[in-house]
Amino acid sequence: MTKLQLLYPLGLGLGGPFCFINFCRRGFQTIPLSGGASPAKMSMEFYSFGPYKIDPTEVFYTTPLSYAMVNLRPVVPGHVLVCPRREVKRFADLTVEETQDLWLTAQKIGGRLECFHKASSLTFTIQDGPKAGQTVPHVHIHILPRKDGDFERNDEIYDEIDVKENELKEKLNLDKERKDRSWEEMCKEAEEYRSLFVLQS
Amino acid sequence: MTKLQLLYPLGLGLGGPFCFINFCRRGFQTIPLSGGASPAKMSMEFYSFGPYKIDPTEVFYTTPLSYAMVNLRPVVPGHVLVCPRREVKRFADLTVEETQDLWLTAQKIGGRLECFHKASSLTFTIQDGPKAGQTVPHVHIHILPRKDGDFERNDEIYDEIDVKENELKEKLNLDKERKDRSWEEMCKEAEEYRSLFVLQS
Repeated sequence: MTKLQLLYPLGLGLGGPFCFINFCRRGFQTIPLSGGASPAKMSMEFYSFGPYKIDPTEVFYTTPLSYAMVNLRPVVPGHVLVCPRREVKRFADLTVEETQDLWLTAQKIGGRLECFHKASSLTFTIQDGPKAGQTVPHVHIHILPRKDGDFERNDEIYDEIDVKENELKEKLNLDKERKDRSWEEMCKEAEEYRSLFVLQS
Repeated sequence: MTKLQLLYPLGLGLGGPFCFINFCRRGFQTIPLSGGASPAKMSMEFYSFGPYKIDPTEVFYTTPLSYAMVNLRPVVPGHVLVCPRREVKRFADLTVEETQDLWLTAQKIGGRLECFHKASSLTFTIQDGPKAGQTVPHVHIHILPRKDGDFERNDEIYDEIDVKENELKEKLNLDKERKDRSWEEMCKEAEEYRSLFVLQS
């Protein structure tokens, strides 16, 4: 049985036991998507994030090579991740086209979210490899809208990114009970962000 | 008088009072360059870094749109900066071509420096705007080769980036006497890095 078949048991689609942030508690319901770059397409596919699968309801922007998703435990409002669609561990492993698309996507999303969250700056970071703090082996850009006083020292945000990544990994590996954001909250956020790209994409 | 004329008083070239990391103490000597992407071209030009000017001897890789330079006070060995040639404050202000070129350049440099410094990971960061820790108002990617034990907690590296940026700004603004790396050391490092790109660029 292929990995894909495992992910789509009996053809029931997304939301099964291998989905990632959706965390196995949502059954096989179909999530209506509104707004966004290509909702019809998005509703038909999952997104790889290392060994995990991302539910399309948590993805708010896509291109043929990249996607952007909301975060289970954002460090600041609007803390999102931008990933290549292809499962690639290291930044250097991306093709020229993937690299270009990933960063043009991040640039566009950063601008919209900074405005949406009334922030005045952005942090863009790739933790490229385990010794740089990467816990999920799939390239991802952290984008964080920044504003005055969001952290007492503005570098503390990086501590938080690492803590959250480790918590996420622990969650994924151990499936402990933890206080995560609700699925409804994440869907709502993704839907809001989708609407930012409808008219101006 | 144009800015360019101010930067090249009496046509004497680089090393004058407006140069940046070169710090005004080196006179008007001509620095022989070896290796590198285009040494002949490099020796004829300066590089803008916000309001400051970068001496070409400290630049080790260039493209028509981007350049990479060594650091006055690196946080780890191989901590370098990649910048667009055009003076641009925010990441969103870069053109598509500049964004693509900047990140393809960073990707290439990261790979070579990780190998050169026998590291196993990389940190890529843009502090995009003052509230994200940016002190020099010119887009720049920090690239840091990472390895086991380089920092007790691997997120401490971001504290260090901010401290160094602030020290750099203070240095630039106040011209206090401080213990910086020597110019010779920086030139030597830039020359080593240039050689990484000669055969394989």
